[in-house]
Amino acid sequence: MAKLKRLLITGAAGALGSQARRHLAGLAEEIRLSDLVAVDGLAANEEFVAADLGDATALRDLVDGCDAVAHFGGVSTEKSFDLIERGNIRGVYNLYEAARVTGRPRIFLASSNHAIGFYRTDERLDAFAAPMADGLYGASKVYGEQLALVYWKKFGIETARVRIGSCFPRPRNRRMLSTWLSYRDLFALVERCFIVPRLGCPVIYGVSQTRSGWWDNSHVAYLGWEPQDTSEVWRAELEASEPQGAVDAPDALYQGGMFTAEPIHQE
Amino acid sequence: MAKLKRLLITGAAGALGSQARRHLAGLAEEIRLSDLVAVDGLAANEEFVAADLGDATALRDLVDGCDAVAHFGGVSTEKSFDLIERGNIRGVYNLYEAARVTGRPRIFLASSNHAIGFYRTDERLDAFAAPMADGLYGASKVYGEQLALVYWKKFGIETARVRIGSCFPRPRNRRMLSTWLSYRDLFALVERCFIVPRLGCPVIYGVSQTRSGWWDNSHVAYLGWEPQDTSEVWRAELEASEPQGAVDAPDALYQGGMFTAEPIHQE
Amino acid sequence: MAKLKRLLITGAAGALGSQARRHLAGLAEEIRLSDLVAVDGLAANEEFVAADLGDATALRDLVDGCDAVAHFGGVSTEKSFDLIERGNIRGVYNLYEAARVTGRPRIFLASSNHAIGFYRTDERLDAFAAPMADGLYGASKVYGEQLALVYWKKFGIETARVRIGSCFPRPRNRRMLSTWLSYRDLFALVERCFIVPRLGCPVIYGVSQTRSGWWDNSHVAYLGWEPQDTSEVWRAELEASEPQGAVDAPDALYQGGMFTAEPIHQE
Amino acid sequence: MAKLKRLLITGAAGALGSQARRHLAGLAEEIRLSDLVAVDGLAANEEFVAADLGDATALRDLVDGCDAVAHFGGVSTEKSFDLIERGNIRGVYNLYEAARVTGRPRIFLASSNHAIGFYRTDERLDAFAAPMADGLYGASKVYGEQLALVYWKKFGIETARVRIGSCFPRPRNRRMLSTWLSYRDLFALVERCFIVPRLGCPVIYGVSQTRSGWWDNSHVAYLGWEPQDTSEVWRAELEASEPQGAVDAPDALYQGGMFTAEPIHQE
Amino acid sequence: MAKLKRLLITGAAGALGSQARRHLAGLAEEIRLSDLVAVDGLAANEEFVAADLGDATALRDLVDGCDAVAHFGGVSTEKSFDLIERGNIRGVYNLYEAARVTGRPRIFLASSNHAIGFYRTDERLDAFAAPMADGLYGASKVYGEQLALVYWKKFGIETARVRIGSCFPRPRNRRMLSTWLSYRDLFALVERCFIVPRLGCPVIYGVSQTRSGWWDNSHVAYLGWEPQDTSEVWRAELEASEPQGAVDAPDALYQGGMFTAEPIHQE
Amino acid sequence: MAKLKRLLITGAAGALGSQARRHLAGLAEEIRLSDLVAVDGLAANEEFVAADLGDATALRDLVDGCDAVAHFGGVSTEKSFDLIERGNIRGVYNLYEAARVTGRPRIFLASSNHAIGFYRTDERLDAFAAPMADGLYGASKVYGEQLALVYWKKFGIETARVRIGSCFPRPRNRRMLSTWLSYRDLFALVERCFIVPRLGCPVIYGVSQTRSGWWDNSHVAYLGWEPQDTSEVWRAELEASEPQGAVDAPDALYQGGMFTAEPIHQE
Repeated sequence: MAKLKRLLITGAAGALGSQARRHLAGLAEEIRLSDLVAVDGLAANEEFVAADLGDATALRDLVDGCDAVAHFGGVSTEKSFDLIERGNIRGVYNLYEAARVTGRPRIFLASSNHAIGFYRTDERLDAFAAPMADGLYGASKVYGEQLALVYWKKFGIETARVRIGSCFPRPRNRRMLSTWLSYRDLFALVERCFIVPRLGCPVIYGVSQTRSGWWDNSHVAYLGWEPQDTSEVWRAELEASEPQGAVDAPDALYQGGMFTAEPIHQE
Repeated sequence: MAKLKRLLITGAAGALGSQARRHLAGLAEEIRLSDLVAVDGLAANEEFVAADLGDATALRDLVDGCDAVAHFGGVSTEKSFDLIERGNIRGVYNLYEAARVTGRPRIFLASSNHAIGFYRTDERLDAFAAPMADGLYGASKVYGEQLALVYWKKFGIETARVRIGSCFPRPRNRRMLSTWLSYRDLFALVERCFIVPRLGCPVIYGVSQTRSGWWDNSHVAYLGWEPQDTSEVWRAELEASEPQGAVDAPDALYQGGMFTAEPIHQE
Repeated sequence: MAKLKRLLITGAAGALGSQARRHLAGLAEEIRLSDLVAVDGLAANEEFVAADLGDATALRDLVDGCDAVAHFGGVSTEKSFDLIERGNIRGVYNLYEAARVTGRPRIFLASSNHAIGFYRTDERLDAFAAPMADGLYGASKVYGEQLALVYWKKFGIETARVRIGSCFPRPRNRRMLSTWLSYRDLFALVERCFIVPRLGCPVIYGVSQTRSGWWDNSHVAYLGWEPQDTSEVWRAELEASEPQGAVDAPDALYQGGMFTAEPIHQE
Repeated sequence: MAKLKRLLITGAAGALGSQARRHLAGLAEEIRLSDLVAVDGLAANEEFVAADLGDATALRDLVDGCDAVAHFGGVSTEKSFDLIERGNIRGVYNLYEAARVTGRPRIFLASSNHAIGFYRTDERLDAFAAPMADGLYGASKVYGEQLALVYWKKFGIETARVRIGSCFPRPRNRRMLSTWLSYRDLFALVERCFIVPRLGCPVIYGVSQTRSGWWDNSHVAYLGWEPQDTSEVWRAELEASEPQGAVDAPDALYQGGMFTAEPIHQE
Repeated sequence: MAKLKRLLITGAAGALGSQARRHLAGLAEEIRLSDLVAVDGLAANEEFVAADLGDATALRDLVDGCDAVAHFGGVSTEKSFDLIERGNIRGVYNLYEAARVTGRPRIFLASSNHAIGFYRTDERLDAFAAPMADGLYGASKVYGEQLALVYWKKFGIETARVRIGSCFPRPRNRRMLSTWLSYRDLFALVERCFIVPRLGCPVIYGVSQTRSGWWDNSHVAYLGWEPQDTSEVWRAELEASEPQGAVDAPDALYQGGMFTAEPIHQE
Repeated sequence: MAKLKRLLITGAAGALGSQARRHLAGLAEEIRLSDLVAVDGLAANEEFVAADLGDATALRDLVDGCDAVAHFGGVSTEKSFDLIERGNIRGVYNLYEAARVTGRPRIFLASSNHAIGFYRTDERLDAFAAPMADGLYGASKVYGEQLALVYWKKFGIETARVRIGSCFPRPRNRRMLSTWLSYRDLFALVERCFIVPRLGCPVIYGVSQTRSGWWDNSHVAYLGWEPQDTSEVWRAELEASEPQGAVDAPDALYQGGMFTAEPIHQE
């Protein structure tokens, strides 16, 4: 498979970014890693460039020379408006401006299921469902998805807008039986997004196989991505260990789970 | 898996009820069986309570103390209006009133594909298709489904409204290749309905795996139920042994099959 | 316009039935009126036949010789199960059996918006929305609609299944701004249903013009019925006189209004 | 009609805000006006409070004591990210935080057709169409719509999310024949949103009557709003005076018109 | 309104073509008329060019120099395959080839409701309904619609694909109450198709206002066409004079009416 | 499985026709082969009858005595109008006329994905998607599909209208990963279409299993056909060997691939 020239991984010191290093090592000739803090153990084809997403100039230098960006940087949970604004709103703007004025690389944008968290667990969504953010974090992800669309329609920059479910080594609770995404499946998706001739700017739900899931990816069948892992191997264990809970508990009622019950963080 | 305290199985002397005893034995600490006539061979955790669904007082006593009801009682085929009215209309009303004034148990309601029997075999239905009953029996099942909904919206009683296909040891004719539900799959569904944190009041199609089926259960993916059996193992045999028949024969034309050609039974 | 030979109006002593006498006087050569109690002042082309909907034999005699039935009889509000069962379940069965064994007249069936009363006021319904009854009364109306369908598919009896909104001299409260049906519009609809070459068995929403309505009748455009009256002339007055109420009051939340908050009537 | 106690109008010195003063004068007992710069000629029931939307404390004081907010403040066209971020992203956050910690007033949020500007002119949208912003401005409006939703689902604050078309004294070009909203129709909508018992958090398209329009408001029929003005009276004149243009010109191709061809503003 | 330079009207000696001369006289500076037989009384800005649609060379000369074509030529009812093939299949191919190799004029293509004639009268269609031709004629019209699409996607030739209902001085029978198109409305549509900046290649239903219609043109609202005439003024008269007929008569059952019962014509 | 009496295979000398001989050998007692040129090596139950699809009389003789037709004859790629007209337009008309006046056999009609070739590769189609032909060939296939429908609705002749993808020994390029149909799967479909009690006249997409496909066959689940082969075994090889190409190359953009870029063939 033809390799990318230079792949930028943002948020490289974070949970998904560090996994990305492991799984995407062979995808590009050179890999540029970035985060606020340095990462350890650079491989031969890796380089590290510190950058703050809120710094437009730094972003431009960071993106320059890359033909692909896997954007895992920014805030990844409910936080104060100021933090989210800098990382996920201004940060995404800076990223796309950098992409526009440099080589217009293809972008894998880590969005989130919290962009649609206020849908109920008995609703099925496809790629065209209007967003229903479940907090400041989710609303910032919707903003990022919209910005990606603007840069696709105006400047031809292709983006996979991936609403990642719950990406951990294994599902941690009942709800994640419906939302769990394995590392293997996530990075196979990243690869598919960078390898297909035409990506466009689709919304994609990032979830492994599950019997109890909420999300329909049939619209992006053309990517040829098919998850290989499944949360089912943990179902019996998780259902036995976690009490059934109230019928109207946030985790039972909404796809966004406990995020829908989060207060507005003040800092 | 956490067990139920006391599960009531109605229609326990009937075809599905007696299977229920076998498959659901371990689901509850105690199992209360009921029918018009007594059942044989009570297990240690089983008790039998005779009751007529048309008797409101008897129903109240029957339901009292149960946290779950698997309702297989009532008339299960085309009969006279009087019989169907008593078993499936008044009977269901009595059941829900009993549930309301006692502990509001979760209910598995055996509805039927004959609630939608006048859809054609080349139509695909999901949980939101408006009913098209194929006779007095089917219309009574639609009534039961509606009553369940009323008690969910008004009193919070959760019900699985399950449109059972053809539940037999094996499919008996060509049509059942599309409608067959194995005992194993049926009772796995009963378990899922009682174990999930939030059931709500969904319409569910009770059918095992089949290549030629008509019903889309994607709306209740959240239950985590996935049929394990399939009618396909009998396809070649049934297709070879059963003549092809006319293009417009009821079995070829309508999902309800021969029920759509039944007259109005007078007794 | 070609007149009907003999039109049966059931519930002729009731609110809609007595209006029907006035508005449909010229529609048929002879008009047969029926109710539990006699009606006053028979016109030259009117006859009265007392009948209880729960009496199958009486119904057969009543329907015999009619080529059209405007069925306004039965219970028209939330009542006990016994009353509703006799009037609206057994009663409708008796009516359709009578129609089947006599001349299979075309039927105008007064169903109700309470067949779909648990939809929210911010939802729009068309003829294919699955029912969501808001009580015992609404569920009985769904049953009647299903029975009509059975007799259409099996015996070719055509029925207009009309979910009547609020049919009064004028709208009485804010909710009725969305549900009001004038007498004139109702009986124009009855006429259209009896005059079109092919009626079939459609679901129709019985509502006059309104800016704030919930129901889409585009599927029965082929009837050529267009309401002439509108609730708008009372809007300002009603909105000024009726307090705004709570956001989640039944009248604000559900199409069925206060019916959705009715208890189960015991007698 | 029952008046509001105190209505806040933001952006009161702007184009729509100043019209709002004229049209909404009788809607509330007291009207609080706000903008960065003072407004002239305060009426007896008007007061002015200067406030910067980017100032959280000022916003809290501004909203306190109001039972309704007509939010016309913020940036209303394509500008640099910094300007839009302060007015429309941080500004909306500050507004909703203020609403949350004070009396949770009902809010009329001036969103924009540029939230869906990249749909084609031969596409029809309803309230559930996923957004397709046509620039930084449009993306900020989508963000505001999402934040409104979060505060409705979490805190019960009701908002009309109104995607205003082109609100001017008259349509200025061919495209506005499809998007023009008269002042009269706009403020009639504001009134309806404040007067209905239950508003919820709907998306509404702000457009007067037009034969060539793109937007379907049937989902908010329950508001009882019906535009009285129409762009049609200017159609012949505008079509005669404006050259036909290229088939693929932005104004011919996209609902957002020339906004879809705007560059990224740098200041 | 800016005039066209030269408009070609094919089938100019036919029923619609001759009406076109009257109604479109002022639309273009010059009008070229064509048919197999000559037309009478040429106006100052009219010229006549005889041409057989089956003659490719003649068609090329005919179209050359025109910036718009109103194509009413060809067979307009059920005929033998040979006649329909020459007029409507080969004829349309020749027309589009002529358009392609000359100035690629905008085309108004007279298609027919018989392209969708096998839909039932209780079905509502929009522009995206898959065709259901009701005979050889209807199938040829579907072919023409597809060819128009090919030349739009490949060569940018814009076409209004207009499924004309029943275009006569007045509706002639009950069915035409649902399908009648007045001359005035037809030619207003032709004008709109030639005047809008972007036409594209839409499917349009050609029908005047009617209460009982089957076709939804909301997708082409962007044309700004709104029929001014209505079949309703003839409804009472036609319904009184035409017997009701059988429930399953072709005219009652299918949108294509009696065409659906036509045999295959052999010459 | 009950065999057919006599199966006609047209286009028997062609690529699919010759495969048909191999795979369908056991399906009928006798197999009649036809093409313009003779085929080799007739088996004991095979006969050959030369016939030109453009010759009506020859077609009638050919079809006479057959209870099933697998129609692979005609032009199978983009050609001049004259060639396509004779093979695919007049040819299909002749075939259906022959079927009508003889024994009205069931027909398997080889249509093509080029009937919908101008849909984008990021669109999913089901059986009800309106056609979007990608050239003269595709338009002729739409014509054939419509003619089949006419003969089903008027004369009860059942047809499987199969939009074949890319039927070769193996997928030849990236696009065929989404469109490849194995011979085995194709002829299993032919068998299913001839064996089911009721075929009707469905549109079916002829494609083997694929992760990246565009077509949804859920509407014909009732056939009980499930492809056994998959293009996935060649994915890695094809993606590695074929360059990624431009984002807007026809193969990347449209389902019809390079056909969408074909000129109009002149001979």
